[in-house]
Order: sequence, then structure tokens, then C-alpha cells
Amino acid sequence: MPLNLRIPGPTPVPEEVRAELSRDMINHRGPEYASILAECTEGLKRVFQTENDIIFYPSSGSGTLESMVVNTLSPGDPVLSVSIGSFGKRFAEIASRYGAAVTSLQFEWGEGAEPSVVADKLRAEGPFKAVLVTHNETSTGVTNDVKALADVIKPTGALMLVDAVSSLGAINLETDKWDIDCVGTGSQKALMLPPGLGFVSVSKTAWEAHKEAKMPRFYWDWTNCMNYQRKGENPYTPPVSLYYGLRKSLQMIEAQGLPSIFRKHEELAAYARGAMEEMGLKLFSTPRWASSVVSAAYVPDGISSKQIQKIMEDKYDVVIAIGQEHLQEKIIRIGHMGHVGKADLAECMSCLRETLVELGHHVPAQAVA
Amino acid sequence: MPLNLRIPGPTPVPEEVRAELSRDMINHRGPEYASILAECTEGLKRVFQTENDIIFYPSSGSGTLESMVVNTLSPGDPVLSVSIGSFGKRFAEIASRYGAAVTSLQFEWGEGAEPSVVADKLRAEGPFKAVLVTHNETSTGVTNDVKALADVIKPTGALMLVDAVSSLGAINLETDKWDIDCVGTGSQKALMLPPGLGFVSVSKTAWEAHKEAKMPRFYWDWTNCMNYQRKGENPYTPPVSLYYGLRKSLQMIEAQGLPSIFRKHEELAAYARGAMEEMGLKLFSTPRWASSVVSAAYVPDGISSKQIQKIMEDKYDVVIAIGQEHLQEKIIRIGHMGHVGKADLAECMSCLRETLVELGHHVPAQAVA
Repeated sequence: MPLNLRIPGPTPVPEEVRAELSRDMINHRGPEYASILAECTEGLKRVFQTENDIIFYPSSGSGTLESMVVNTLSPGDPVLSVSIGSFGKRFAEIASRYGAAVTSLQFEWGEGAEPSVVADKLRAEGPFKAVLVTHNETSTGVTNDVKALADVIKPTGALMLVDAVSSLGAINLETDKWDIDCVGTGSQKALMLPPGLGFVSVSKTAWEAHKEAKMPRFYWDWTNCMNYQRKGENPYTPPVSLYYGLRKSLQMIEAQGLPSIFRKHEELAAYARGAMEEMGLKLFSTPRWASSVVSAAYVPDGISSKQIQKIMEDKYDVVIAIGQEHLQEKIIRIGHMGHVGKADLAECMSCLRETLVELGHHVPAQAVA
Repeated sequence: MPLNLRIPGPTPVPEEVRAELSRDMINHRGPEYASILAECTEGLKRVFQTENDIIFYPSSGSGTLESMVVNTLSPGDPVLSVSIGSFGKRFAEIASRYGAAVTSLQFEWGEGAEPSVVADKLRAEGPFKAVLVTHNETSTGVTNDVKALADVIKPTGALMLVDAVSSLGAINLETDKWDIDCVGTGSQKALMLPPGLGFVSVSKTAWEAHKEAKMPRFYWDWTNCMNYQRKGENPYTPPVSLYYGLRKSLQMIEAQGLPSIFRKHEELAAYARGAMEEMGLKLFSTPRWASSVVSAAYVPDGISSKQIQKIMEDKYDVVIAIGQEHLQEKIIRIGHMGHVGKADLAECMSCLRETLVELGHHVPAQAVA
């Protein structure tokens, strides 16, 4: 039985994309690569819903967060971190490490960032040079309302830097329409590729900030990256095999259409939440903020998330995620982003049900999964 | 005809390795990944000839250079850059960007770093906190004598940070025996993988320096990386497919044996230089320093490197590199590192000969290639 990988990334890679990964190398400073880079840039712009520049990195998604910070800010700049979980904390930590003056606005894990609370904070403690926002927080299964946040953040003149690592291409994010300055994402989530490529979109306002930004940088330097990208190259040797795969996965996304992909994820999430509730599990995220790419639920009393994870993997080849930090043993998280269908998720839910029964949890009789 | 990729990286990837790249994803925080990471770590230690820690990055080789700088140095630290070409300049530029006080010792392109000259500089302008050295300079086809350099650098107490991106696994580099503090390399050269993974070895002395080092860092932070690696993980999602390939390529290197691999590269280089000289081309690098992984030669008067490159690719599917910076049109560079045999190189030389004839160059009758 093939692995049913139900973690919130890396996500399963479609066979057509995997076939591309094993193609041999080409000259990364030649015309064929330039043409792939151009095609990927255009395809990504459609997924980012932007006309802004998109910068490519040989990096994980976290690298794209660091690039936004060091390219737009100077040490001492006041920054507001809007954090709803582990990845929000990471974003703030990056800014702190480089000397930004970070004010932290932390919401309870499981909740999203309430725009009116963010507005109050901006009024009370602003102005800020930048606001750091996580679109989808995989540690809690929560999606922020980026549009509503932009509505309160952008009028203050702050740059809005958005971590969309686990959301872009699966959850609607209208970069240009909502006027988001920077959006960063990675290859291994909704883009259906292995990890190893990061992408950041850069608005005109962010480019203006870049000119004044004094944080030190070399690898992440936007000017250097774009100078090369404009001639169809990258400053450093690019992960060529992932570019082959990206071109293919972007074609697949294009063929399916973003609205249909967004809808698929919403339907899968509704199904996952319904199934878990029917098994008697309490959902972790508040319904209003529940993510459409990862669903989290408390484990029953007396059972650890690690037991569930282990049995599901050993017995059924279904791999789910457990909680992070203080929630490690308290919640399970089930990913349904990218290359995933209803059957994969149904199988996962069925195995979860069996596992809970095996662990002595009373599963209500009507549970359909 | 398949592409004969004769640039100094990315290099051709063996079929067995390419097959690994298309395997599907696994949980990067599970036991199977931990076991792959452990096997890769042990295999790499043998290639690095070290017992030091090896840190893995989702990055290109340049990222590993940045990681050495920001993890061992503080702004204002005196650093000696020993530069013999374009990649030496890059290493110095990274240190400057992060505020090191860089003294530059630049040798003529085509020459290696004369140890006695380096010793004089260390005496006259030292002490330095660190010395930056390129092992093999692909922009010029020159290999430094790292052992002889270590003999003059290490007694001064300076850290020795070595860019071995294009040499490690193809040219002998005895990290522990020569007491090299940090060695950085990338996946796309002698390791026979696509680009996208970087590795750095860290000596005890480098770890001591790390404790005091104040340059800002997050993505590159060694402490964070090793905290995760010790439990079989990485801080950020690793490029899983490249790890599959790395495990395989390390097995292949192990089977062949480093001494035999080093010898192969020396023989290929001797063949390449001989063939080019017989065609009437003047070698670019001084014989004493000539690299065994990339061979550079001046183009004949009245012919541009770009013309040669274009004809070879369009007509013969042989891809060579041209010069960098001021040498762009003046030299050609032919890579013979990693997964390459005599037949590949012979084909390349034969096509080069045909191309030169086509361009009106008089090739001496005795030219064998």
C-alpha cells in the first residue's frame, strides 16, 4: 500500500511531476533554463495573483520569511508581529535576530487574528514599519483573514509581510487586489513539489523600502537576485530538478483553475472536520478560523497524539502530524493540501477511527468515516 | 544524442541517482527520514575526511559560505580574503556585507595563492580572526594547495574557512588532518546530485568561535541546525528528494573509493589539457595550479568564447562554459567533475576541434582529439 501522507507538508507529489524530477541537468546559465525560469515566473504570478516581481530562492519556505525581513528593514525598525502559533513566532524571531524592535501581538492558539484587535494595537503602539502576518498557521490549523487584516494594516502605511508558505495555491490570497507587499511561500505544499524552492513577491512599496533597508544580507539580497533573474538566471546555482517539476505543477494548477482548487480544499476540510467530530473528537481551531488545508483536533483524554500517530503509520501506512510545542501530545493535525483527493482523506479518517477504537476510545455508532 | 554537459556544475546525475529523485515524499519529522539523514551524515563525513559535525542546508553552495561567515564572526572582526578568482571575491563580499573588516589579498586570475605570500601578509597585517580560502576556483580552473596554506594560516590562530564547493569529493581535502575549521560544499558538483543542498563541516575551534560570534543569523544558525540534526531532523523542511539522491550517490562514492575518484579526475584533467594544447589553444591556468575538475583555455585570436559555446551546443549537444567577468569572451572552461568518463570528455574535445576548424582556427595536424 503506498504511503498516505497526511501531514501539512511536504505533500504528495503527482506522478507527472515526479517524472520531471529525474530529468538530467542542463546549463543553468543557458537558454533552456532561461525559458523554464520565465515560464515558472509567469505561472507563479497567476498563482500569487500578482503583477509584482517574484524572487526565487534555493531554500525552504522559512528562507523566504528571512528574505522579507532583511530586504525591507533596518535594525531598530519598529515591527508588529501578529502571531497565532508556532510559525508566527518564527517570523517574529527572525525579525528580532536581525535587530528589529518587535512588538508582539499574540492570539490564543486555535484562534485567528481578530482584525479589530490588530487595529487597536496599531493605533495604540504604532506606527510600525512592517507588520508580520501568517496566512495559514499549520501548527494550529487556523487561517487568518488576510484581506480584513490588510484593510486595517495598510492604511497605517506599514508594509504587510505575509507568510503564505502553507496557503498559497490552496487558499485564496489576492496579492495585488489586497495590496500585500510581500508574500512568501515554498514548493512543498499546495504547489505539489518536493521541498527546496522558495518564492517571494515584492510590491513597488517593498522595493522602495528595500532601497533604504540596512539589515545585512547577501544570499537573500533582492537586488542581486533580480539582476540575475532579469537575464534569465539566478545568482547562485538553482535547484534545476525542482524547476522542471515546478513548470509541470504550474501547468496542472493552470489546467484545474485556482477557484476550483480553492473549492476542493474547502470541501476536503469540511469533510475532515465533520468526520473527526463524528468520531467524538473536539476540533482544535475555532470554526470561524478553521483552515482548509490542515485540520486539528484534540485527542481523547488518556490517549497521546504519539500513540495515534504510531499506530496509524505502523498498521495502515497513514502518516499524520501531531501537535507542536506545548500541544505536541494534545492534538493531531491532518493535512489535506495540494495533490490530495477525497479518497485519500476518507482512508485516513477510516484508519483514524480504527486506531481510536483500538486505543479504547468510544467512537459513536453513527460515525460515518 | 543526450546532452554532454561539460560545465563546472551542475554536473550530470547518474541514472541510479535520478531514479531516487522521483520517489514520493515522506514525513520529514519521522523515523525513515532520520535514518536517511544519519546515513548521509556518516557518508559525508567520509567524503569530508572529518569527524567534525556536518550541517545540512536547503541552499546552494553559496549559502554554505554565508553560514561560515555569520556563524563564526562578529561585525568589525579582521578577516583576510585570499582570492584567486570570482568565487574568492564572492566569499569576501559576503564577509564585507556582514560588517567584517576585510583585507583582500588578490592573486592574478589563473594563478593559485602562493603560501609564502599569504604568510607575509599574515605577518605584516595580522592577526586575523579568519582567513577565507577557495579550494578550487571554477572561474579560472585553478586549485589552491590548501594543505600548504593551512601550514601558514593555522599557526597564526586564525580560523580557516574553505570554499570547497567545486572540489569536495573530486580533489583530496583532508579536513581533519590539515585542521581546516570549516569546509563548505554543494550537492551539484562531485557529489553528482542536482543543486539544492549545501553542507558545512564545523571544527571544535569553529564551534568555540560560534559562541562569541555576533553577526545576525537565523536560517544559517548552526546551533539551531544542530539541535534539530541531533534528533534526526532539520529546523526547516529539508529537500527530501535530494536526500534520497544523496544517500545513493554517497553509496556510489563509497564503492568507488575516494583515492580512485581523485585519480580519475587527475587523469581526465591531464587528458583535457593535453587535447586543448594539441589543438593549439593556450591553457589559461599556470600548470602548477591547474585544476583537476575544470580546465580553462584562451580562445584563439579573433574568435569569441560565445561563438564556440553556441556552435558546440547547437550542432553537437555539448555544453561548455565560457569565462566570467572580464574573461567572459576570452576563455572557455570545460568541466570534468563527478559523473564523467573519458568518453564524454573525448567527445567534447572532438567537437571542440571541429568547432574551431569551422571558425577558421588552424588546428595542428597532429591534434589527436
